[in-house]
Amino acid sequence: MDINILLFPDFETLDAFGPVEVLGRVSGYALHFVSMGGGLVTSRQKTPIMTESMDQANAAGILLIPGGQGTRPLVQDEDFIGKLKYAAEQAAHCLTVCTGSALLARTELLNGRKATSNKIAFDWVKSVNSAVHWIEHARWVTDGKYYTSSGISAGIDMTLGFIADQYGSEQASDIAHGIEYVWNSDKTNDPFSRKKY
Amino acid sequence: MDINILLFPDFETLDAFGPVEVLGRVSGYALHFVSMGGGLVTSRQKTPIMTESMDQANAAGILLIPGGQGTRPLVQDEDFIGKLKYAAEQAAHCLTVCTGSALLARTELLNGRKATSNKIAFDWVKSVNSAVHWIEHARWVTDGKYYTSSGISAGIDMTLGFIADQYGSEQASDIAHGIEYVWNSDKTNDPFSRKKY
Repeated sequence: MDINILLFPDFETLDAFGPVEVLGRVSGYALHFVSMGGGLVTSRQKTPIMTESMDQANAAGILLIPGGQGTRPLVQDEDFIGKLKYAAEQAAHCLTVCTGSALLARTELLNGRKATSNKIAFDWVKSVNSAVHWIEHARWVTDGKYYTSSGISAGIDMTLGFIADQYGSEQASDIAHGIEYVWNSDKTNDPFSRKKY
Repeated sequence: MDINILLFPDFETLDAFGPVEVLGRVSGYALHFVSMGGGLVTSRQKTPIMTESMDQANAAGILLIPGGQGTRPLVQDEDFIGKLKYAAEQAAHCLTVCTGSALLARTELLNGRKATSNKIAFDWVKSVNSAVHWIEHARWVTDGKYYTSSGISAGIDMTLGFIADQYGSEQASDIAHGIEYVWNSDKTNDPFSRKKY
């Protein structure tokens, strides 16, 4: 199974690498770091990652879309959104973290579906596409092949939840123990939805 | 303040990028991804990172050393350990995650000091240098300018603890909220030290 981690300038570092740590521990998963143009992509926290071009990737596997400040210009980028829509349609499963759900929402593929996003940017995310059934109180949300999580660290919990759905909760728990992570395994348990910042 | 994230082949992805997410949110911190030779370095989870050469870096700031499978050959690499010792001596603060403490222990700089490491590899880490006062039950341990954490995810808790020690617990809590992370702020609370895998 090919796992495509879709990166773009100013993506949020942990949005990608929390899930990567979990997915990288699943036997048979081959991780690929991709971007629309290929080459070096630098995260919001200044991490330079070498990427393959998405159009060279096998899009039939799992697509992971992080969020971050870089999503703000990209929701207006018709070329990016068109390519993302194609990739998400091809994918067997599509996982987003934080404001990555805003990018996916712009493709219209979430229309009429349930989804969530991070709590600080929630009003902006809703404004991107009001045809999505946005769930504000959720650590993560599943709807068909689409998994969307709350902010940043929630991506780790969601990805473990995805592994649990695919292979059983024991495998997810084993991975959580292996990375010494206290897994919030209840997707309705959102410690951050009512807090003010 | 320059923050040098020291990468090497087969480092564990989240060991580096959990702390990076936290450190990248501190005003005035400039993150640099470095390796002993510079160039592309690939993590255990196949992430290719472009690095600067450590000998070009300003070593006077904070040094972060991740762990992972790549530490196993490196504890035998006299050239690497010699350069690491120099970098750690220059650093104002030195933080290790997981088996990154085995690398630091090999420099002898932890001799007589308290330190910890991850729980699956603990016996191996102790065997690297028995002159260190290894603490088995700890989420993270501080001794002077040295911070050492348990496995993988513990690096996030330790780095927030470091920020709390430097700038107060409110700033650490604000960062934890910003990344929607439930911070284990008690370094003696180790949920994984008594578990079997």
